Amino acid sequence: MIRNRMPRYEILGPEAMATLDLGWRRIVSEMGVQFASPWAVDMLREAGQEVDGETVRFDPDWILAQVAKAPREFDMRARNPKHDVHLGGDAMVFAGVYGPPFVRRGEVRRDATYEDFRNFCKLAQSYDALDSVGGVVCEPNDLSLDSRHLDMAYAQATLTDKMFMGNVVTAENARDVIRMAEIVHGGRAAIEERPALISLINCNSPLRWDDRMLDSLREYALAAQPVICTPFLLMGAMSPVTIPASLAQQIAEALTGIALVQTIRPGAPVVFGSFLSNIDMQSGSPQFGTPESGIGLLATGQIARHFGLPFRGGGGLNSAHTADFQAGFQTLMTMMPTMLAGTNFVLHAAGWLEGGLVAGYEKFVLDVEVLESLIHQFTPVEFGEDELAFDAHVEAGHGGHFLGTAHTMQHFRDCFYRPWVSTAESFDRWTRNGSKQADVRALDHVDKRLDAYVQPEMDPQVLAELDEFVAMRKTELDG
Amino acid sequence: MIRNRMPRYEILGPEAMATLDLGWRRIVSEMGVQFASPWAVDMLREAGQEVDGETVRFDPDWILAQVAKAPREFDMRARNPKHDVHLGGDAMVFAGVYGPPFVRRGEVRRDATYEDFRNFCKLAQSYDALDSVGGVVCEPNDLSLDSRHLDMAYAQATLTDKMFMGNVVTAENARDVIRMAEIVHGGRAAIEERPALISLINCNSPLRWDDRMLDSLREYALAAQPVICTPFLLMGAMSPVTIPASLAQQIAEALTGIALVQTIRPGAPVVFGSFLSNIDMQSGSPQFGTPESGIGLLATGQIARHFGLPFRGGGGLNSAHTADFQAGFQTLMTMMPTMLAGTNFVLHAAGWLEGGLVAGYEKFVLDVEVLESLIHQFTPVEFGEDELAFDAHVEAGHGGHFLGTAHTMQHFRDCFYRPWVSTAESFDRWTRNGSKQADVRALDHVDKRLDAYVQPEMDPQVLAELDEFVAMRKTELDG
Repeated sequence: MIRNRMPRYEILGPEAMATLDLGWRRIVSEMGVQFASPWAVDMLREAGQEVDGETVRFDPDWILAQVAKAPREFDMRARNPKHDVHLGGDAMVFAGVYGPPFVRRGEVRRDATYEDFRNFCKLAQSYDALDSVGGVVCEPNDLSLDSRHLDMAYAQATLTDKMFMGNVVTAENARDVIRMAEIVHGGRAAIEERPALISLINCNSPLRWDDRMLDSLREYALAAQPVICTPFLLMGAMSPVTIPASLAQQIAEALTGIALVQTIRPGAPVVFGSFLSNIDMQSGSPQFGTPESGIGLLATGQIARHFGLPFRGGGGLNSAHTADFQAGFQTLMTMMPTMLAGTNFVLHAAGWLEGGLVAGYEKFVLDVEVLESLIHQFTPVEFGEDELAFDAHVEAGHGGHFLGTAHTMQHFRDCFYRPWVSTAESFDRWTRNGSKQADVRALDHVDKRLDAYVQPEMDPQVLAELDEFVAMRKTELDG
Repeated sequence: MIRNRMPRYEILGPEAMATLDLGWRRIVSEMGVQFASPWAVDMLREAGQEVDGETVRFDPDWILAQVAKAPREFDMRARNPKHDVHLGGDAMVFAGVYGPPFVRRGEVRRDATYEDFRNFCKLAQSYDALDSVGGVVCEPNDLSLDSRHLDMAYAQATLTDKMFMGNVVTAENARDVIRMAEIVHGGRAAIEERPALISLINCNSPLRWDDRMLDSLREYALAAQPVICTPFLLMGAMSPVTIPASLAQQIAEALTGIALVQTIRPGAPVVFGSFLSNIDMQSGSPQFGTPESGIGLLATGQIARHFGLPFRGGGGLNSAHTADFQAGFQTLMTMMPTMLAGTNFVLHAAGWLEGGLVAGYEKFVLDVEVLESLIHQFTPVEFGEDELAFDAHVEAGHGGHFLGTAHTMQHFRDCFYRPWVSTAESFDRWTRNGSKQADVRALDHVDKRLDAYVQPEMDPQVLAELDEFVAMRKTELDG
């Protein structure tokens, strides 16, 4: 986990913030937000909000009072304490892509399998830049739909010793994964004291929370496991085509979800989520790595800080089919604002391709290099007199070179970040090495990393308990 | 030319600035800087600086007094007044890659020719995002070494009606190109009043200005044509391995060059130049698109503003051999800080490949899309109540969509930037279209653009005078 001690890049002035404030207050109070689970509607009615069927109209100040109960920052536990993370403040946590039904490896694009899922767990474990494999790093299509949440959590808990995400398909799934986290971490009290699972709760934008998401949200909130309340906004389809209108809607959606969490369990950790891009107005297809999404990210970071909440957004989003120039350029169009915004939880930080439909093996590895580069760029430089190295100038002289100066000899090992997929080799050498583009070179690294993977150790008793629980639940679910 | 009205991203606090101030003052006063042209040494001696052979030790306050004579901002003329540009303030001017001896087009990498040079002029003319083809967009290796500066300036002046750069190989070349600018723009007085040529004067870093560069600098300064005094720093080779030491050296070099210009012609326009990256400490090869170069860019923008000077730096620098993921990622690693730093003159904004050895046709086109995207991202968003579009929310309703709302219908044509090389098409469609990566798709655009190119008109009398001058000088130079 890194601390981003560089300045935040803030683009909203006080007037823009005042406009947004007007916007979200009007949406929640005049239009209201729909909640598809009756328990949620009841709970909000009891808390004094105005209910009309599934629609709840809010007092904006009540929302703010609820939001104020959430912690500004919190810690999360990993199986290996070295991999514990902090959510909020200047901390940044990076996790893999979430949700792709397909994988790409070289020329082949196909349905993802559990083997792919396990491979991405292994890759996430092996790179320090990643704090977590994430959640559904790819959909294990070859497993039973009813019980694959058990297999996924099992792979994450055993193949990695980093934190991972909860399942949100049903409340029952959520309870299963919470139980598995209890087994891994030594019981309910342990994970309630310092949470182990973070979960992605998407809004069915515009302005509607669906029942499966709400029911999962409740399970995690009751267990004091953080949920990321995330409006799912593709401007032009799920929100208006202007950024201010989309941001106002985003605030309305995120804050109503968060207020509900605080009604279920005051003080439960939450995260202000953002997934904000736009469609192509000619074809209607979603676009990623767009200028508009970059602006949205910068603004949302500032908005989340305004409400005193940790912030999730960004990642290596792009619309490219392969790890080509478009993928590289669009990934940075999102990842650079992700860093500038000081994003606390960065989902989709590795492997995202084709608008999120594909988990790319090469892309996963290339994104790790992107992350490492950005982490270096966002590490403040020391500016003491020592760093001026006046003696080096004297030693090199006018028109000389610094290759052999004492100062260079002292620092050459770690003075610069050294990429390992990107190349700066000569044209002759590059040609001799097969004229490989970056995606082809990355594939070599995938194979090498998977071959070199070492599974982190686990207490045999814990493992046995986990095995037993999974076997029992599989029998119940799959018959 | 765009105005970057987004905030600057500044990373140097007052202590860092004080350290740098200490650093450059010590370098110029204790070590001094070498000037390989006797006229320069004489001129600086007469101005009261301490001379020892080619080495001049400076009074830092005298340097600052000279620098203060330079204009903070200035205008430049293009042949077409619509393409006039402003240097300094929040203006940003984008120009093509400068200096590559090779070109790449598809699988072929070969010596650049005059035909390539002309092609890049045509491409630069045809894209609005570019304000200039730049200077030596590629080296026309098939032309006479002695007279190719005439051919290059002729192509730039006739195939484009945008501003372009002066030649700096010799003082005689500089005088020729200045004469051509006089012909194009209606005489010496016109270009002295509002300059037409900007020139790249590199320092032979560390701390030495060579004679050809100085002699060219003098010609342009005498004609009041702006020069970009640019330290050429690959950290580890031409400057120390720490960023503060390199920045201090960069200030010492840039300011001594600028002070000399102000001694030649007080008030002549100048630009604080930066070309700052690092070598790979294992192989010694230059690396581009590095985290360190991004930090350097952000810092240098702030430093140039501190001294009240327009700033040149950045561009689409990378070490990739083809327009692959590495090229896209590294290009943004430099271009995003270029935007954040509010860089006033952005050389190498299109076409840079392979550490600057290659002008890439596909890369040129892809970089135009990168530029357009960044220009959109760095355009401030209006945050009025109108932009909140509350009616659109009401019209779409809970869980609905915004595709057909009145607000969307009103704005759909120009609400989002629409990429034209990057694709968001479905996998099926992409496959049917040939499964082309971005570099392959870009090549189609190269051909289309060159086919559709229309040469801008030129006054026949001016053209005749230009032809006559070039013919005369070619006879003198090539015999």
